[in-house]
Amino acid sequence: MTAPIDFYFEFASPYGYLASQRIDRIGARHGREVRWRPMMLGAAFKHTGAQPLIHTPMKGEYMMRDLPRFARLLDVPFKAPPVMPANSLAASRACVWLEDEDDLAKRLAKAIFAAHWGEGRDIGEPEQVVGIAESIGIDRTRLLEALADPAIKQRLKDRTEAALGRGVFGSPFIFIDDEPFWGADRLDQVDAWLERGGW
Amino acid sequence: MTAPIDFYFEFASPYGYLASQRIDRIGARHGREVRWRPMMLGAAFKHTGAQPLIHTPMKGEYMMRDLPRFARLLDVPFKAPPVMPANSLAASRACVWLEDEDDLAKRLAKAIFAAHWGEGRDIGEPEQVVGIAESIGIDRTRLLEALADPAIKQRLKDRTEAALGRGVFGSPFIFIDDEPFWGADRLDQVDAWLERGGW
Repeated sequence: MTAPIDFYFEFASPYGYLASQRIDRIGARHGREVRWRPMMLGAAFKHTGAQPLIHTPMKGEYMMRDLPRFARLLDVPFKAPPVMPANSLAASRACVWLEDEDDLAKRLAKAIFAAHWGEGRDIGEPEQVVGIAESIGIDRTRLLEALADPAIKQRLKDRTEAALGRGVFGSPFIFIDDEPFWGADRLDQVDAWLERGGW
Repeated sequence: MTAPIDFYFEFASPYGYLASQRIDRIGARHGREVRWRPMMLGAAFKHTGAQPLIHTPMKGEYMMRDLPRFARLLDVPFKAPPVMPANSLAASRACVWLEDEDDLAKRLAKAIFAAHWGEGRDIGEPEQVVGIAESIGIDRTRLLEALADPAIKQRLKDRTEAALGRGVFGSPFIFIDDEPFWGADRLDQVDAWLERGGW
């Protein structure tokens, strides 16, 4: 039995969204489970000095041309949200709260990504996250309690620190065993690496 | 007759090197000439606040793992130079000096890239650039005069400013007509764009 692929992502990252639309299929093609691992990318930016692309002169404009073009190529819906980058705390906490229920956590993450980047909804408002969670059958009251729970807040910090410890500085960031791949534009290499067992 | 593809690059950029190994073949496959346009990327970094990847915490380490892996995938030689990023002034000036002799300028650029990233030679030393140029039949004395010529220095500044004016902030940066593509990892999209006439 081979180990799962680790798929690190930040909900506010549009390239994380694009990768999220392909990664499970790539894993399945090679008989590998994919573990979805939300994190707060801002914590990595403190180390790298990076800032959100959208606020970077020249790069921001290019990104807004590259993203819809990339999405059309993948045949994936794309709509720019009203606030970029969104505050992804509620979305990320909701997912780490559910981390022991892997299927449900993954379904929630996909629904959040679809709402945020596919429909342009602002996941920075916790009420939006709660509404998305309800739409896939998650109990509102339990989720609201979890979002306010200091243990869940700490868990997200811990998961983010662990990601940084593995060298994650961007989104998406994928490990096949310990081999790191950064970026939605590395997914073909991820696919090839799994196919060949490295090169 | 369709317009040439514009291929902007910085000699100190290893991803510019990787792209340089594929771009002419992609152009040829679609009957498009490729214009090679060296520039000084540091001028763009002043706008974007970027710094060389190699000096960026976390990203630098990743890059040194990604680069040789990417080069092996493309079956292209790769050897890290002693100084990164190299000072590419002499290399870039030599190429803009020859810009009216497109074939020769391109041969020189390829030879410089091969020496720097394929063999790990330090092109920051002008003598290295002169030696590379001589090896493809360029006259040493004329080149040394050109490298010291204020008009050539100004020409490189002008070419760099013109690149910034088109939105170039990274290396490689490719325009098909006015459609911009940034990164060695966009070359498959460049190929597809030429194939389909956009999407």
